Amino acid sequence: MRIALAQINYHVGNFDYNADRMLAAINDARNHGADLVVFSELSVCGYPPRDLLLSDAFIKRCMEAVNQVAAGCTEVAAIVGGPYPNTDKGGKSLHNSAFLLYGGQVQQVYHKGLLPTYDVFNEYRYFEPAREFHTVSYGGERIALTVCEDIWNLDGQGMYPVNPPDILKKENPALMINISASPFTWNHSPGRIRIMSENARKYQMPLFTANLVGGQTGLIFDGASTVFNSSGQLVDMLPLFGEDLRIYDLSMLDTVKTKPLPTHPTQEEKCHLIYNALVLGIRDYFRKTGLKKALIGLSGGVDSAVTLVIAAEALGKENVWAVLLPGPYSTEHSVDDAIALATNLGVRHDTISINDAVSSLRNSLASQFQDTRPGIAEENIQARARAVILMGLSNKFGHLLLNTSNKSEAAVGYSTLYGDMCGGLSVLGDVYKTDVYGLARLINASGEVIPENTISKPPSAELKPNQKDTDSLPEYEVLDGLLNCLFEKQMDAKEIIREGYNSALVRRVIKMVYGSEYKRYQSPPILRVSSKCLGTGREMPLDAAYGALDY
Amino acid sequence: MRIALAQINYHVGNFDYNADRMLAAINDARNHGADLVVFSELSVCGYPPRDLLLSDAFIKRCMEAVNQVAAGCTEVAAIVGGPYPNTDKGGKSLHNSAFLLYGGQVQQVYHKGLLPTYDVFNEYRYFEPAREFHTVSYGGERIALTVCEDIWNLDGQGMYPVNPPDILKKENPALMINISASPFTWNHSPGRIRIMSENARKYQMPLFTANLVGGQTGLIFDGASTVFNSSGQLVDMLPLFGEDLRIYDLSMLDTVKTKPLPTHPTQEEKCHLIYNALVLGIRDYFRKTGLKKALIGLSGGVDSAVTLVIAAEALGKENVWAVLLPGPYSTEHSVDDAIALATNLGVRHDTISINDAVSSLRNSLASQFQDTRPGIAEENIQARARAVILMGLSNKFGHLLLNTSNKSEAAVGYSTLYGDMCGGLSVLGDVYKTDVYGLARLINASGEVIPENTISKPPSAELKPNQKDTDSLPEYEVLDGLLNCLFEKQMDAKEIIREGYNSALVRRVIKMVYGSEYKRYQSPPILRVSSKCLGTGREMPLDAAYGALDY
Repeated sequence: MRIALAQINYHVGNFDYNADRMLAAINDARNHGADLVVFSELSVCGYPPRDLLLSDAFIKRCMEAVNQVAAGCTEVAAIVGGPYPNTDKGGKSLHNSAFLLYGGQVQQVYHKGLLPTYDVFNEYRYFEPAREFHTVSYGGERIALTVCEDIWNLDGQGMYPVNPPDILKKENPALMINISASPFTWNHSPGRIRIMSENARKYQMPLFTANLVGGQTGLIFDGASTVFNSSGQLVDMLPLFGEDLRIYDLSMLDTVKTKPLPTHPTQEEKCHLIYNALVLGIRDYFRKTGLKKALIGLSGGVDSAVTLVIAAEALGKENVWAVLLPGPYSTEHSVDDAIALATNLGVRHDTISINDAVSSLRNSLASQFQDTRPGIAEENIQARARAVILMGLSNKFGHLLLNTSNKSEAAVGYSTLYGDMCGGLSVLGDVYKTDVYGLARLINASGEVIPENTISKPPSAELKPNQKDTDSLPEYEVLDGLLNCLFEKQMDAKEIIREGYNSALVRRVIKMVYGSEYKRYQSPPILRVSSKCLGTGREMPLDAAYGALDY
Repeated sequence: MRIALAQINYHVGNFDYNADRMLAAINDARNHGADLVVFSELSVCGYPPRDLLLSDAFIKRCMEAVNQVAAGCTEVAAIVGGPYPNTDKGGKSLHNSAFLLYGGQVQQVYHKGLLPTYDVFNEYRYFEPAREFHTVSYGGERIALTVCEDIWNLDGQGMYPVNPPDILKKENPALMINISASPFTWNHSPGRIRIMSENARKYQMPLFTANLVGGQTGLIFDGASTVFNSSGQLVDMLPLFGEDLRIYDLSMLDTVKTKPLPTHPTQEEKCHLIYNALVLGIRDYFRKTGLKKALIGLSGGVDSAVTLVIAAEALGKENVWAVLLPGPYSTEHSVDDAIALATNLGVRHDTISINDAVSSLRNSLASQFQDTRPGIAEENIQARARAVILMGLSNKFGHLLLNTSNKSEAAVGYSTLYGDMCGGLSVLGDVYKTDVYGLARLINASGEVIPENTISKPPSAELKPNQKDTDSLPEYEVLDGLLNCLFEKQMDAKEIIREGYNSALVRRVIKMVYGSEYKRYQSPPILRVSSKCLGTGREMPLDAAYGALDY
């Protein structure tokens, strides 16, 4: 049997587009001699459809799309993903299913048993888990067909009380196929591939996985579909961040040369991965919303510089507009650095001073602010004046404003709500400041694009004279290490202190994090690249008592 | 046996406060001769704790609090709610449990079987459902103890494949006790009480329910704990929106006078309920975040007027500050109406013109905007200038800005992101415009508080000359009816058209709804009063293809 893996960038709710792409792949695969074409999870509707799944009409369109693709499966078979009505008398109204199509129609349906409902996943909101598991049959072979998470509970001791492959194995299948929508995080891939390798080895069967590729409202799916032989060795991996269609002869898997399993990325590889993920994330958000052009407030600092470079790569330099908004405390070198960057990139740039607007706004407040000491309120007026001007341009000309905040400042609330927190999409909101510098160095690796001064100068919001981020925050190396313990490693205060961080600092930072939940609640969608993004995937009360910071 | 229902306003994460309140109630109940005191779901930590449940230290504090309350149960028993570690080898790490306490310690633990994971609920994110169900025993009686949703699947054909009370009934319990955290919606109560009555009747047992009361980040729990006799008749209902402790003699339930089950609220009752819910929601958000004072931009329109009145009731008129921000197209009557309202209420009010700030901001953009036609961009500058001034006051003086947007305009995106969408809490974001008028009439029922002109004039954003909402939107009676079909009744376009709405209008409105998902993504938290709030509880992709509006 010749099996094709189709790694496609679907669009949620775009049924005609998705079906057309699948039918084209089926045609292509057939022309190259494939017997079976495998598509990713929920491929007919795109992933994640979220509450569109609650619409009966949406589900009807899903079923029509499955049948439309099935009608194209006359000479080859296909496996596609889609929702399927639950016909049992109790439980959620849908299953998350894999459909085996041939002979022009749906032949067998498998329902997902393990429904991820944690972090960014919310599948039990919509789907009833399968409680019985059976193989499907095609071409004289039994296939242990599963959907994504189903192969992630190998020892039966994880988040679910069952392990579907153990049950499927009893029917003596000849191979395993897993269709998935497993999103990117910079350090996820080695673990994902190890789990798959362990499945192939444990059950002594070849394993084919078809993963989704593409960005969808903040989630970035990296593709990297895989083929393993029955010893668990990696036969092939499809590209990261790109579409592809590849065909494999099942009988040859145990004889072809295998590849080493990927290892934990180095710091440089990490930056490469994040860079490529963000390019895809921006590109798809624009493409899927039908937008073309981006607007960025360019400050001369490293965050907006990196955002601009990535946006220019994603959208083309002609579709990106940089606007400098110098204010009363902007330094001359910041303006120069920003212009130098825009010039290096060949991106349109304009300069609009905020000084008059800030003066007017402050004058409006003068009688109220009389006899008060200048502070955060006055600083925020500058950030918000910039936002009003940027949003004015966005509204007038239809450019989407890209947010340039990084994860470190977002985490501790070192940001102005309705000011620098503005934008339709946060590009760096899941990238710590130290990694933003890593991205800047990567961008400059083969020649200076971002002015060296932007990278080497001490970071500053430039909202009061001689301001430095370190006036309010610890050094970013320390802050990011601490935040990484808190978020990605899910440590409590006591555990973080045990890692060697100063106890007062740990409490101060955690207090800042809890004290700024209300700001992040109103954050733009964030392109997710880490295992704990502070946007979707983190759900915190805004009015909890966080007094006991050591719980 | 004498059973006390303790209806308490807990605070998420405030362990000492919650335990103190429970211990005081236990003491009080004992002094009044109670044998068993029943508290609501997850009472030790407050509900919903959301991702705080992912912290091991938080869970440890929960267990400590359970033991602390148990230590106070020497002369009476208590039932409290809290998370409990799952000791099975697979599955989520926690159960959502009810603890039976007496003799100074935890005696038995029941785990919730039906975990709501829809709309605003997300319990399967944290909890493993129980698969076995047993009664608990106290005072020589078997008790069918359950947690909230467990008694909501009576026919076994709803969202879950099991019905715990059917299983518990086999152990011949003498009574049912249900601890819950069931949030308010204006039309929920009659249905909730009917379900409970049906449980008591079906199993021919008295039923005691202890529900949470209080606001917690947008969710408002209305209390209304209940007692039913074994015929399913309502013996008593604790207050809506308030705390209480009441004691019942189990042996007397079938002889005391019963009350009629509540019926669907009239339009006037609906407004009363919403009004009281919003007062509680505001009061608790401030109290639980430690804030005292609110700031409101008062336009002379009905939305900000109603918001101001409710805020003044919730926080005290001395803690509310109204700021008038007249702009180039504000009418004189709007200013007069706003001042009249603030004067009627005895609320501090200041007037700050936005004209100079708007001129400066427009001048800043003059060279970019040259040769363009004035439109949305210019209108939004006015709304955003107001936001900068209001947030300046908020930052300077520590008042929380209350958002005044209503549900109708939020639904169709008739609002300015970072302009009138600003604020720390949305008071009317789940109230349709027609109901805002209902609230205004209720407020004026015993004398004019809101100037009649505010209520009777055609609604206008006053962002261009002679602007009316109906320039851009259908009449609110039509729009709200249509939106109600779309959201609360979950109808598709075709079904709404079948209700008699104009087909082009339905498509236009649905397009506006889908086209403004990105705005609502950045909305402040909304006080939820309906069965489909457009904040928490609605999860939509921002970049789906909504071309096929009739799915």
